Amino acid sequence: MAVYTEVSDEELEAFVAQYDIGEVTACKGIAEGVENSNFLLQTTSGSYILTLYERRVDPADLPFFLGLMEHLAGRGLDCPVPVRGRDGQALRALCGRPAVIVTFLKGLWPRKIAVSQCAGLGAAMARLHLEGQSFPMTRPNGLGLDAWRPLFLKEAHRADEVKPGLAAALSAELDFLEGHWPVDLPRGVIHADLFPDNVFFHGAAVSGLIDFYFACTDFLAYDVAICLNAWCFEPTGEFNVTKAGAMLSAYQKVRPLSEAEIAALPVLARGSAMRFLLTRLYDWLNTPAGALVKRKDPLEYERKLRFHAAIGSVVDYGFQL
Amino acid sequence: MAVYTEVSDEELEAFVAQYDIGEVTACKGIAEGVENSNFLLQTTSGSYILTLYERRVDPADLPFFLGLMEHLAGRGLDCPVPVRGRDGQALRALCGRPAVIVTFLKGLWPRKIAVSQCAGLGAAMARLHLEGQSFPMTRPNGLGLDAWRPLFLKEAHRADEVKPGLAAALSAELDFLEGHWPVDLPRGVIHADLFPDNVFFHGAAVSGLIDFYFACTDFLAYDVAICLNAWCFEPTGEFNVTKAGAMLSAYQKVRPLSEAEIAALPVLARGSAMRFLLTRLYDWLNTPAGALVKRKDPLEYERKLRFHAAIGSVVDYGFQL
Repeated sequence: MAVYTEVSDEELEAFVAQYDIGEVTACKGIAEGVENSNFLLQTTSGSYILTLYERRVDPADLPFFLGLMEHLAGRGLDCPVPVRGRDGQALRALCGRPAVIVTFLKGLWPRKIAVSQCAGLGAAMARLHLEGQSFPMTRPNGLGLDAWRPLFLKEAHRADEVKPGLAAALSAELDFLEGHWPVDLPRGVIHADLFPDNVFFHGAAVSGLIDFYFACTDFLAYDVAICLNAWCFEPTGEFNVTKAGAMLSAYQKVRPLSEAEIAALPVLARGSAMRFLLTRLYDWLNTPAGALVKRKDPLEYERKLRFHAAIGSVVDYGFQL
Repeated sequence: MAVYTEVSDEELEAFVAQYDIGEVTACKGIAEGVENSNFLLQTTSGSYILTLYERRVDPADLPFFLGLMEHLAGRGLDCPVPVRGRDGQALRALCGRPAVIVTFLKGLWPRKIAVSQCAGLGAAMARLHLEGQSFPMTRPNGLGLDAWRPLFLKEAHRADEVKPGLAAALSAELDFLEGHWPVDLPRGVIHADLFPDNVFFHGAAVSGLIDFYFACTDFLAYDVAICLNAWCFEPTGEFNVTKAGAMLSAYQKVRPLSEAEIAALPVLARGSAMRFLLTRLYDWLNTPAGALVKRKDPLEYERKLRFHAAIGSVVDYGFQL
């Protein structure tokens, strides 16, 4: 669930009175998402999302996230737009937390992913990468290569509780990634968390990208590698080469990948699997038993990592070379 | 959180296609509520609530609940109205569960209760009781007097884990309630769960009553007693006689309580406190450690019970006799 903070009706009404969006008619906590408290806010002028940033988000990063959404929306991408109050500010405080109101995006996120939706995702991600090139702010990837070893070391002594031998396997994989990570691929703004629940569709067409709270400056192809992991494996664990091919081909039509980017995809995909494996491992070992958040299985990403480590060539990703 | 069932976009679209409410534009799981899965459904024709009934609701009771909402709404009460599909049916299946779409009610439920809202509640509850008199169906109260002893006996051996001496105190209180429970008060449809999160307001005015899934046929004054417990104690544990007086006085203006009902209020309030104490005790002792539901403190109701057992007369409830 994703409502950590109770907002009283008086506080909410006083907050909304600072905007030109009419009066509050309803406000429901949204069950999705795990990082922040999100509410579907309805006013006499329409629907909005009210987000209260909880402790996992560094307030110093908010100008980057909000500025990026405004930048991308201004270039025609369907993403939430922070609403500015009458004082010109989008970011203010509610219940002792940084809070924003953003526009509401229509659409449903796919529970069962269709091949056509992988194509839609690929095209939308490529547009995000192109339009992000003119965004002037930068933000380092706090969960990039440099972060993995420290994150691993925090939990290394308990990793074998999850699976015998896991600590040694992760340590060896980190050695490999540190020795083979690319250094000179095209960089820019990436979303870095483009999982299906962050992409809304109307049929096969993307109607919105949401949740930019991991966005950062990194290799563009790393975002593609994240999506290979997040969109192209079946719930049974098998890699679906048709979905991957559809995603990559649609991406390439908007932004062709360079030869170096294509060649780097397997190592980027291993790194992306490592990143989600490590954060899930941390959450798995550190989520209190009575917590309200459902823990995600870290070993799902260990299996994905092994898939990428074993592929023969990028043809296995469905590339039409 | 209150989303136990994932509904895929295909299933949702096929479900909504059976109604004349336009096409789905968005659907968000709602974090509130603990019994069922609730979604805020938006279509090209407006906002609705989609409810999937989970295992705590007996499907055989659904015609009573849905019929009651339709009956009350038809008499001008602001409550959700089940939407009928093109086949004339309001109740159908989705993801293997009974499911309905009901109309969306505007308003906010009060986190901090104002005296004026207690008055609004009192008047709305009295109207519900009056209009419910013409509803032809009946449903026994599954959590009434007869249910308490069996519910207690299930957990009696572990009650002292929550508080030493609790089992003996509850047993003695059950003896008292069974010996003093009224037999001949005015009966009719009661809501039986009119907690603040089930009453929406626009300022001091009630804009909607929701969640009729405990509604049943019982003493009308028992509903009033439930609200004395749910609305008139401060978070610090003190009884607020001003709130109780405002609620009772507004109720009486719409439906005057008989002398017998007034005299029975303390024992009804003790019984109501026992009912919530016992279900909370059961949940407290039986909620798995990793569950997604936040457990509510049973001892809050033990303290309320002791308050009602100790009052001198109904003047302590703020009655203007």
